Amino acid sequence: MKNTLDHLRVVLVDARNPLNIGAAARAMSNFGVLGLRVVNPYEVAFREARSAMGAAKMLAKAEEFRTVAEAVADCSMVVGTTAVGHRELQHPLRTLVDGARLIRSLKPSRKVALLFGSERFGLSNQDLSHCHWLMTIPTRTEHSSMNLGQAVAVCMYEVAKSRKAVRIVEKKPKKGQARAGEVERITILLFEALRISGYVQPRAEAAEEKLRRLIRRLQIDQPDAAILQGMLRQINWKLGNLDGEKERKPR
Amino acid sequence: MKNTLDHLRVVLVDARNPLNIGAAARAMSNFGVLGLRVVNPYEVAFREARSAMGAAKMLAKAEEFRTVAEAVADCSMVVGTTAVGHRELQHPLRTLVDGARLIRSLKPSRKVALLFGSERFGLSNQDLSHCHWLMTIPTRTEHSSMNLGQAVAVCMYEVAKSRKAVRIVEKKPKKGQARAGEVERITILLFEALRISGYVQPRAEAAEEKLRRLIRRLQIDQPDAAILQGMLRQINWKLGNLDGEKERKPR
Repeated sequence: MKNTLDHLRVVLVDARNPLNIGAAARAMSNFGVLGLRVVNPYEVAFREARSAMGAAKMLAKAEEFRTVAEAVADCSMVVGTTAVGHRELQHPLRTLVDGARLIRSLKPSRKVALLFGSERFGLSNQDLSHCHWLMTIPTRTEHSSMNLGQAVAVCMYEVAKSRKAVRIVEKKPKKGQARAGEVERITILLFEALRISGYVQPRAEAAEEKLRRLIRRLQIDQPDAAILQGMLRQINWKLGNLDGEKERKPR
Repeated sequence: MKNTLDHLRVVLVDARNPLNIGAAARAMSNFGVLGLRVVNPYEVAFREARSAMGAAKMLAKAEEFRTVAEAVADCSMVVGTTAVGHRELQHPLRTLVDGARLIRSLKPSRKVALLFGSERFGLSNQDLSHCHWLMTIPTRTEHSSMNLGQAVAVCMYEVAKSRKAVRIVEKKPKKGQARAGEVERITILLFEALRISGYVQPRAEAAEEKLRRLIRRLQIDQPDAAILQGMLRQINWKLGNLDGEKERKPR
């Protein structure tokens, strides 16, 4: 049987405990989600993760990345998981049921990244700035923080469930969404333009995060992404030429 | 608010690993199921179970029994969990979705025991003989055996689902789309930047139309429209400053 969840990548960001990585891999395997990616795991030897009964093969095939940007570069949808609660939300939020339905309904050609943060802190604001929307497991407000391996298990269960369920129509019927890598390039190019123009300070990380979120909200499709990159390159080339005498030559 | 899952008792039979007991307790707490019973745990000191972040209270209140018979004595329905597969079934079997629905539908006065077996062997035939029916989590046939803590988490999630006890988060209401006038200003500003940069010819009407369409496809919302206008004004100001000497002064 063809696996209908081949387009899904589970991305563990800054996971600190190899037990949890193993547990996540096992739950994925239980529910037939086989694409595991790991960003900056605390122990390089995460492949040795114990407690991963039956998941050794998956751990061996797990892809390792240094940054979230690289881990999601080939994905056209990036979803963050969060316990919500105290966090001020700057993203559309879906419950697990709704989010899982949306993820299942996507064409197999559209890769989806589902991000899980570290055991202690969840996803950082910087991590979240790569996301198109957030998904939350409805837990008790009095005790909302789940164990990482358990959160992954519950998500895999719901995503894998009743795959034949009716496809729901996405809000914006579009040509293929641009991949995250392209969207990130647009972000970087625009940030560069804003920097040269003096709109932002060179190392304004908060501004870069805000910009990243704004660009994601636009849900740029693939052809437009290519055009926008071309435009920004030209603008930056011009800005650089003007600015270049002062800033570029010293390099 | 009254907890509507007060009638449910999760019974861990012969759990061998205190980590798993802690994990089970944590997941129960996450989903508002507070009645934990433990039969013949390997370590008497199971209350010290680590990894039970936020579940210490539950572990302290857990009831300990020597036999399954004693642990389910006050329950009017006893449900076993199983990965099925090889086991020859002598019980009615329900999927988690159907079973959870049934459990939820019971009167609060009818206590229900949900049994989980040991990590290695699951529930024994003897344990199963106490059960009225069995419930199974639909996993891959190639890898059906779940981690105990994760199996409990998935069951709690499904049982607690669509209960009022669980706060359901509303979707973030979308901010209003930007008005056409604002969208047009963005178009004009970007066209100006592209003109100065040499991306388009000054009177390229077809290019302007294409740009107009592209900007509309982005479906920019109101706050973002304001930000984008500010960005483009700044970029154009910089571009104009540089370009101005040649092109603007003659006017």
